[in-house]
Amino acid sequence: MREVFQQELAEVQDRLVEISRLVGISIAKSTRAFNESDVNLAEEAISEDDKIDELTIELDELAITILARQQPVARDLRIVVSALRISSSLERMGDLSTHIAQLARYRFPDKVVPKSLRGTFGEMGALLVTISTMLTELLTTQDVKLAEVIRNEDDKVDALHLSVFDAVLAETWNGAAADTVDSTLASRYHERFADHAVSIAKKIQYLGTGAWQQSTTGVQ
Amino acid sequence: MREVFQQELAEVQDRLVEISRLVGISIAKSTRAFNESDVNLAEEAISEDDKIDELTIELDELAITILARQQPVARDLRIVVSALRISSSLERMGDLSTHIAQLARYRFPDKVVPKSLRGTFGEMGALLVTISTMLTELLTTQDVKLAEVIRNEDDKVDALHLSVFDAVLAETWNGAAADTVDSTLASRYHERFADHAVSIAKKIQYLGTGAWQQSTTGVQ
Repeated sequence: MREVFQQELAEVQDRLVEISRLVGISIAKSTRAFNESDVNLAEEAISEDDKIDELTIELDELAITILARQQPVARDLRIVVSALRISSSLERMGDLSTHIAQLARYRFPDKVVPKSLRGTFGEMGALLVTISTMLTELLTTQDVKLAEVIRNEDDKVDALHLSVFDAVLAETWNGAAADTVDSTLASRYHERFADHAVSIAKKIQYLGTGAWQQSTTGVQ
Repeated sequence: MREVFQQELAEVQDRLVEISRLVGISIAKSTRAFNESDVNLAEEAISEDDKIDELTIELDELAITILARQQPVARDLRIVVSALRISSSLERMGDLSTHIAQLARYRFPDKVVPKSLRGTFGEMGALLVTISTMLTELLTTQDVKLAEVIRNEDDKVDALHLSVFDAVLAETWNGAAADTVDSTLASRYHERFADHAVSIAKKIQYLGTGAWQQSTTGVQ
């Protein structure tokens, strides 16, 4: 029974890694589409979100099946419950990535962001791609040191998010209302995406180094 | 064992109802603070969010304890897992309510919303209060007909949300950039609040009429 459980837990982990990887591809496409006004890339990111949604539903079903069949307790139980929550955050990150791509598609062939903010959104996009890559790595290796790195990168995203508000509220801002709306929403989507990554990182940190792996050695 | 489980499930339900009730009070205060520029009410809503956060953490712990002790399967298991998800949405609704109150506080003594949009935000606020009331009722009675009502009210919120964008993007819009930013964010917070209510309603609908109660009669 224990061995079956360990296999199932490894399966849960593999699937979380896979979903996180797809979210990483999505945010790389969305932010590039957004910053370079690439409508094809935006379309790709949008259409690929269905796959993320599907995989998270399947993962949730697997986690519930494990709860029912294996009746885990203590730390094992917390790992499975955490998987459900991580899945929910990943699904939401996919949605936010889609929202960023939708802004690019909606404004095409124009760029979403006025010239003065392109540097800022370029940096934010790059940070989200880094954060996603770190998150997949964190889910793969359970190396909780990466959680700290993700938090630090999130601080940078927050600072850039605030700087977007400073820019659009400055007297020198001469963007149209549409620019103001798009920059506000886009910045908020970027910020929320990073927040979800931090929330996942915290859950893994809470479970402790090598949550899924330690469990394989039977440590509780 | 079964009887203990039913008692614990009833306890979970009671706590969800309580949290939902507090979220309802919070959104009533936040939207009034927002629309009437009442900074004291905004402060109240903001400070009361800690209680919501605390109660959701306690509820999550209770749900996990039930999973560990009672080892529910089939529909019972799904009810407990749903409780975890509902709790997470309620916590988020509390956050969004706080964001609305923070906008009111930040802009005080000015009103957040320019005159031309006050009617729209007034309606949106009233809809959120209605939706919250319905949600508490749905959690209390498990009457899934209320889920449909919540979805309908959410459609109205979505329509108003779109109308905010139409307004700020119209040629006649003469608000400052700060008005555009605040209206955009506020509208988004209102829309997301309603979305979470719909998401909870769907979960209860999925579990079927009288989820918690049916379980009390031992029906699976």
